[in-house]
Amino acid sequence: MKNFKLFSPTDYRYGVDELIDYLTEESFIKYKIKVEISLLETLYDFKICPKYVVDEVKNASKKIKAEEIYREEKRIKHDIRALVNVLKKYVSEKSKPFIHLAATSYDIVDTARSLMLKEATEKVIIPDMIELEKIFIKLARKEKNTLQIGRTHGQHAEPITFGFFISLYVERWGERILKVKETKDNLKGKFSGAVGCYNGLRLIVKEVEKFEKKLTEKLNLTPSRISTQILLPEPMVDFTHSIISSFSVLANFSDDMRHLQRTEIGEVGEPFEKKQVGSSTMPQKRNPINFENVKSGWKTFMPRIITSYMDQISEHQRDLTNSLSQRYIPEILVIFDSSVRRIKKITENITVDKKNLKRNFDISRDKVIAEPLQILLSYYGHPEAHEKVRKLAMKSYQKNIPLTEIIFQDEEIKKYLKKFKPEQIEIIKNPEKYTGIADKKVEKICNLWEKKMKEIQNGKC
Amino acid sequence: MKNFKLFSPTDYRYGVDELIDYLTEESFIKYKIKVEISLLETLYDFKICPKYVVDEVKNASKKIKAEEIYREEKRIKHDIRALVNVLKKYVSEKSKPFIHLAATSYDIVDTARSLMLKEATEKVIIPDMIELEKIFIKLARKEKNTLQIGRTHGQHAEPITFGFFISLYVERWGERILKVKETKDNLKGKFSGAVGCYNGLRLIVKEVEKFEKKLTEKLNLTPSRISTQILLPEPMVDFTHSIISSFSVLANFSDDMRHLQRTEIGEVGEPFEKKQVGSSTMPQKRNPINFENVKSGWKTFMPRIITSYMDQISEHQRDLTNSLSQRYIPEILVIFDSSVRRIKKITENITVDKKNLKRNFDISRDKVIAEPLQILLSYYGHPEAHEKVRKLAMKSYQKNIPLTEIIFQDEEIKKYLKKFKPEQIEIIKNPEKYTGIADKKVEKICNLWEKKMKEIQNGKC
Amino acid sequence: MKNFKLFSPTDYRYGVDELIDYLTEESFIKYKIKVEISLLETLYDFKICPKYVVDEVKNASKKIKAEEIYREEKRIKHDIRALVNVLKKYVSEKSKPFIHLAATSYDIVDTARSLMLKEATEKVIIPDMIELEKIFIKLARKEKNTLQIGRTHGQHAEPITFGFFISLYVERWGERILKVKETKDNLKGKFSGAVGCYNGLRLIVKEVEKFEKKLTEKLNLTPSRISTQILLPEPMVDFTHSIISSFSVLANFSDDMRHLQRTEIGEVGEPFEKKQVGSSTMPQKRNPINFENVKSGWKTFMPRIITSYMDQISEHQRDLTNSLSQRYIPEILVIFDSSVRRIKKITENITVDKKNLKRNFDISRDKVIAEPLQILLSYYGHPEAHEKVRKLAMKSYQKNIPLTEIIFQDEEIKKYLKKFKPEQIEIIKNPEKYTGIADKKVEKICNLWEKKMKEIQNGKC
Amino acid sequence: MKNFKLFSPTDYRYGVDELIDYLTEESFIKYKIKVEISLLETLYDFKICPKYVVDEVKNASKKIKAEEIYREEKRIKHDIRALVNVLKKYVSEKSKPFIHLAATSYDIVDTARSLMLKEATEKVIIPDMIELEKIFIKLARKEKNTLQIGRTHGQHAEPITFGFFISLYVERWGERILKVKETKDNLKGKFSGAVGCYNGLRLIVKEVEKFEKKLTEKLNLTPSRISTQILLPEPMVDFTHSIISSFSVLANFSDDMRHLQRTEIGEVGEPFEKKQVGSSTMPQKRNPINFENVKSGWKTFMPRIITSYMDQISEHQRDLTNSLSQRYIPEILVIFDSSVRRIKKITENITVDKKNLKRNFDISRDKVIAEPLQILLSYYGHPEAHEKVRKLAMKSYQKNIPLTEIIFQDEEIKKYLKKFKPEQIEIIKNPEKYTGIADKKVEKICNLWEKKMKEIQNGKC
Repeated sequence: MKNFKLFSPTDYRYGVDELIDYLTEESFIKYKIKVEISLLETLYDFKICPKYVVDEVKNASKKIKAEEIYREEKRIKHDIRALVNVLKKYVSEKSKPFIHLAATSYDIVDTARSLMLKEATEKVIIPDMIELEKIFIKLARKEKNTLQIGRTHGQHAEPITFGFFISLYVERWGERILKVKETKDNLKGKFSGAVGCYNGLRLIVKEVEKFEKKLTEKLNLTPSRISTQILLPEPMVDFTHSIISSFSVLANFSDDMRHLQRTEIGEVGEPFEKKQVGSSTMPQKRNPINFENVKSGWKTFMPRIITSYMDQISEHQRDLTNSLSQRYIPEILVIFDSSVRRIKKITENITVDKKNLKRNFDISRDKVIAEPLQILLSYYGHPEAHEKVRKLAMKSYQKNIPLTEIIFQDEEIKKYLKKFKPEQIEIIKNPEKYTGIADKKVEKICNLWEKKMKEIQNGKC
Repeated sequence: MKNFKLFSPTDYRYGVDELIDYLTEESFIKYKIKVEISLLETLYDFKICPKYVVDEVKNASKKIKAEEIYREEKRIKHDIRALVNVLKKYVSEKSKPFIHLAATSYDIVDTARSLMLKEATEKVIIPDMIELEKIFIKLARKEKNTLQIGRTHGQHAEPITFGFFISLYVERWGERILKVKETKDNLKGKFSGAVGCYNGLRLIVKEVEKFEKKLTEKLNLTPSRISTQILLPEPMVDFTHSIISSFSVLANFSDDMRHLQRTEIGEVGEPFEKKQVGSSTMPQKRNPINFENVKSGWKTFMPRIITSYMDQISEHQRDLTNSLSQRYIPEILVIFDSSVRRIKKITENITVDKKNLKRNFDISRDKVIAEPLQILLSYYGHPEAHEKVRKLAMKSYQKNIPLTEIIFQDEEIKKYLKKFKPEQIEIIKNPEKYTGIADKKVEKICNLWEKKMKEIQNGKC
Repeated sequence: MKNFKLFSPTDYRYGVDELIDYLTEESFIKYKIKVEISLLETLYDFKICPKYVVDEVKNASKKIKAEEIYREEKRIKHDIRALVNVLKKYVSEKSKPFIHLAATSYDIVDTARSLMLKEATEKVIIPDMIELEKIFIKLARKEKNTLQIGRTHGQHAEPITFGFFISLYVERWGERILKVKETKDNLKGKFSGAVGCYNGLRLIVKEVEKFEKKLTEKLNLTPSRISTQILLPEPMVDFTHSIISSFSVLANFSDDMRHLQRTEIGEVGEPFEKKQVGSSTMPQKRNPINFENVKSGWKTFMPRIITSYMDQISEHQRDLTNSLSQRYIPEILVIFDSSVRRIKKITENITVDKKNLKRNFDISRDKVIAEPLQILLSYYGHPEAHEKVRKLAMKSYQKNIPLTEIIFQDEEIKKYLKKFKPEQIEIIKNPEKYTGIADKKVEKICNLWEKKMKEIQNGKC
Repeated sequence: MKNFKLFSPTDYRYGVDELIDYLTEESFIKYKIKVEISLLETLYDFKICPKYVVDEVKNASKKIKAEEIYREEKRIKHDIRALVNVLKKYVSEKSKPFIHLAATSYDIVDTARSLMLKEATEKVIIPDMIELEKIFIKLARKEKNTLQIGRTHGQHAEPITFGFFISLYVERWGERILKVKETKDNLKGKFSGAVGCYNGLRLIVKEVEKFEKKLTEKLNLTPSRISTQILLPEPMVDFTHSIISSFSVLANFSDDMRHLQRTEIGEVGEPFEKKQVGSSTMPQKRNPINFENVKSGWKTFMPRIITSYMDQISEHQRDLTNSLSQRYIPEILVIFDSSVRRIKKITENITVDKKNLKRNFDISRDKVIAEPLQILLSYYGHPEAHEKVRKLAMKSYQKNIPLTEIIFQDEEIKKYLKKFKPEQIEIIKNPEKYTGIADKKVEKICNLWEKKMKEIQNGKC
């Protein structure tokens, strides 16, 4: 049964089940134990501890529950020492001294945190992002020739295609996937001790940097080139930035889709389940609640970057004012991933309403020729084409005669029209053809990102 | 048993038990039902529904579990409609139509949210804040004559007393208590329907504003003077601001205390339990972990104000992009309260180390007379006293002769010293007396706030 | 000639001329001199300095240029000492010692800052805000009966009136004016010296708090009850919050108006000058550039609240990490005021397009009766009115028969319709009448705020 | 003469002269003209316009003043159209039509902005950053063996060297230089027209992407792979992030140095000019005003990232709510660069006080051996070394006997001490040797970054 005696909506409402094995407190403890084991394995590699110690601790690790460690922490007020105490309880007297040997708490904590975030990103976040990218690609291709009026300032501008609109998200989202990938790969491990000089380790090991490298590589991490008691903060702030700037892309997409769903526009429709209720008093309504939810999630977690920037400041060899704050980093990933999944699900089944797309385009069908006209007039030598077309547009508006008609009556314009090539005249007469290279661009972008997604999935990129 | 399969540290680590009855999801549902009952009571007052409906729903409300409502929501994708459906299941056929009659979801949700935040603040947050204020007052009075070197730019400046330093927090914290009180009292209820014009209610009730007033007053809330589908956002952003700006006061106090606890300064000491472990590798250490924790909490939740400002924007009669975000408001209160309690507990038992206070003051004992000297020289007519004293200070520094000695040798100064009154000479000779009205100010501030705290507790303020 | 060799758009593009006398660096210096003069006047009141000193400095102050002080600062690296040095140059030898006597720099700086912000707010900001409020009131009243479809989630909901929509801003903006007024009145002065204990002043004056009160009251400020070297930060953060939360109201209004101006909606139109160019290539366009500008200004300056919260933290008796940051506070006022003026100018001449309002309402004319129908069905005892209406709405949608017709054919509904009162039937048949108390609410809100604005202007509030 | 009738401190106080040619409004106009010229050159390359047009406009560009364009903008309310109008005034009738041909305003504006930021970064920001890096390297090497007590939680921990402390900034700052370099190189140009499909250009040019590539490459920019009316926002947000996260490194350094400058610590000293005044009333003071200034600048501009994230959202093919906000981006660079220069100047002349470093270390000289002792005890098989040492430390504290003595008296410890190697005993007796590989790490880090800096300067990286 789910628990509702909780304060945080992340747990009672928005959590992603697939992330439980990576980003909960229980998993964090699991990762910390994993680092302690790597330490023992490296001690063994360096011939400092016997093999049985490693084995005993591995066995012990299976029996330990978060609960027990928390109980010990309550007693001694130190989380890592609590973990160490509990581990020691489960091993032989001879093994005890090797546990946590020469380590400082944050050798374990920071390395474990890098590990948990990296694995969650590799196993869940990036795969989810890739799936969404594929849906974007599919949709862009499918609608690459679907005419849509382009909008700037919320005003009709020149025509594009719906697929072209989507392909912009193919590009932006693709780039963010690469950025997330790059920054998670840059999360580091450390084993440099209480102030970063390997003071303790150096007592018992000569090649301390080699030791650190070996230990972190067992966890598929690279060691930080230098560190204090804690890891340098920049890899983490870059990682946070990559997630939040990706979240912004979803927020932009959500805003776009919300507005395209407006009653008066109606170019897209969020899928709606049969039993779903749109409003408690207005049963006719179909609200874009999923896009609204994603925007709201972005508004809630985007400002967390401020925390990350503040966490770049840690006095001297570290102060602890980043302890609570860092514990909240996994949550950003959870809500981000929950939003990715939401957008994926909705976009997969989105309705593109071609009738409305056409209807909306037709509102401005006539007016959009102002731009090509002005360009062609200039091209053929008109010195003030912009001003000329502006006046014609005004006249069209005032006299209520279509611009497409007025221009063929205007004496000055007629002289220029004679110079136009047939395909140029064609566009002036059929503004729906004025879509530039929309379709080709869609193909180009989609092909590129389809290829890159494959490369990532095959581990080549 | 505590659950550690959670993403949010708010629940697995920092939650405050006393707030569970107010700020969890389960409580929120309880508050929403409370609003639905107030609606029925008002309908009864206006002779629209019979008394038994109220009774039936009150009985039903005792049986309902969050779980059940969540199950229904999953089916129909609408949280308030789910609540209504579940309520209906537990009442007679004749009562059903009155439940939620003429209400829109957010009449219930927004009113319930105001209620939950207001009650949590009244019953837990403010009482906790007052207790901390009392501890500040006690400490300020106790140490009102304890000499401390004042510090500006981290440099020794002129003397104050430790009690004076604390009395600044008495004042700042006191003012924030008043601000929190004022803004929580300004949280409103609403019953104006789907777009704010009481469109639905007006069908069945003539005096709709009176109806709304009655309904909200049953909950000890005042109605919003006007609203859309949702409450106006400003009372909420003012409330959030009051909490966050209070949190900043704690953050400042924490920073001050952390620095006073530095090894080289050592003027205060965070109490340390016998079994507590300071560091996993440096057993000698006593770290200011509680003050660090509070600073870290502030860093994490302070930026949330950005979310509140963004939530001031809701398109037209509302968009839903404030739904997820508003669900996270209670969490801010939880971490804030947890910090108040932490500071309270630590400050109550703080060690003020008079030996170190004295030692630190003595470092600058000689130098602090530069200021009074300069003022008195000016007062007695020296045209360039500041420059004169600066040079003397330099000379003292270079020749390594105390300023207190040098001045009594300087011919120019001697002429002025003759004019000094005895109490002025006294201060030049005994810089520890140069504390202005530190002690009197402490009394004045403490008396004032002691009185105000009593007034708040007696409900007079 | 204007200077464009500037980095900040605040000066080369968005500045408000009327604020130059209050919020520029030159004015700040003027205010600092004003505080120095108040000090001398108070010294005179306390019989410490002769009258001629005050007069000499007053005369000197007229001759001093910012340039000269900056030159001196460059030499000695201290801004206030530079000011004092320059002042001294212009007075007699006998007057020199009294200048800045017993003052610390921030007695002058902080008091001058409060003064400059307070006066700018009183003389320019609030009057501008009031003018905008009056325009809102006028527009709300004018359009109080103009039917508009209410929108929630960007979807048509139930009808309101355009005046009702505006009256929400009357209320929100009115409340923010009160908040700005309250917080600017709470900005304080101080004269408590280098560490806040009046250490220096106490050497020469017995009643130091009385002295401070007198000095600040000469400047129409109240003294801070207690202070360190600097003023307590909370009054400033409250003031910043009041400005930024007001800015958010403008941002919301701008978003609303931008969307109402969308090509497909067209309910309002930003006034457009004859020579104005909408787009460099699309001469037909009329973009809501002013509303976009205001939103952009909000995005740029709203996050500055974070700086204010961080400035609540100043170590011990102060550190200087709030010096640069506080110099940027006036800029927030400038851009805010520039936005107020922009909105004022645009809204004054806004076009409300009744044809489009009607057209848009008609899209949903039929569907909006779902809500009143559901409420009335419940009212007359239907146990599942919501579900019943939902199904009818679906049927209407699928069969393409208006809901208004279908309901009069449905056997189950017919039974209930018989119980409806004539005015209830009237609404079901004429959904444009389903506007609740929109018109009355407009009058109520406008009357209230009209009265309050007068009170503020008459200094009664 | 400098102007002080300005609102923004960026111009009247903190501006960097070397950036005037890049980041002022005047320069921005210069860059926009540069883009217009590139357009004409490309039109010439594609045989659309004659050579003399390019030449005429190049000549015209030398005569144009910002003032004139602003006057025209005031008339027609459109900045780019104003620029085009003014350019046309200076060329022959035949050249007029080619100016701005097929361009939309933001083809020019966005490309020019990328260009200005890129060039400012290349010519001023990065060279300044590199100079600071070199100073860090020099200082780190110089002090690589200077003993310093490491501090965690503001408490003495284990020893490091002052050079090691600095080498952490060598690493962090070096990495940020690479990040800034990478993100400025990623700033793009565009020439895809009003909605991004090259609609207009396609009328007169077949290979539009080739055209765009040629045009942007003339400016040393790469074209955006796809765009709307404006550039994709992500390269800009990544760039802003790189600057702000670099600023955070300076803020951390400033905090560290401020605290090391505390009266009680005094390990470093900000250089102080002879005429400089530390305090207006306390002539003895030497405040870390430059480090405070940098921290304050960070507090003011760091939150601007929020604006950048919000600017990632632009509706459909663009809304204009990023116009004002983007104009404020150069200012972030100005204050950042001003801070880099400040830190550079101060750090170059910083005083490292070895006497105080030694004195501070000696406070904890005895206690620091707790860690090596515990590690070695564990290493030699003690099952509860941590607990054992904790008790010894307590005993030492209570009995006031040095830990270094107590351990040689403790029977249990003695047994283990026998196993210690000489170099291990050496450290227990001489804690100043307990600095791990501090010195070697310094060399390694400094060599690495020295090499990289050279590579960047030689354009190899």
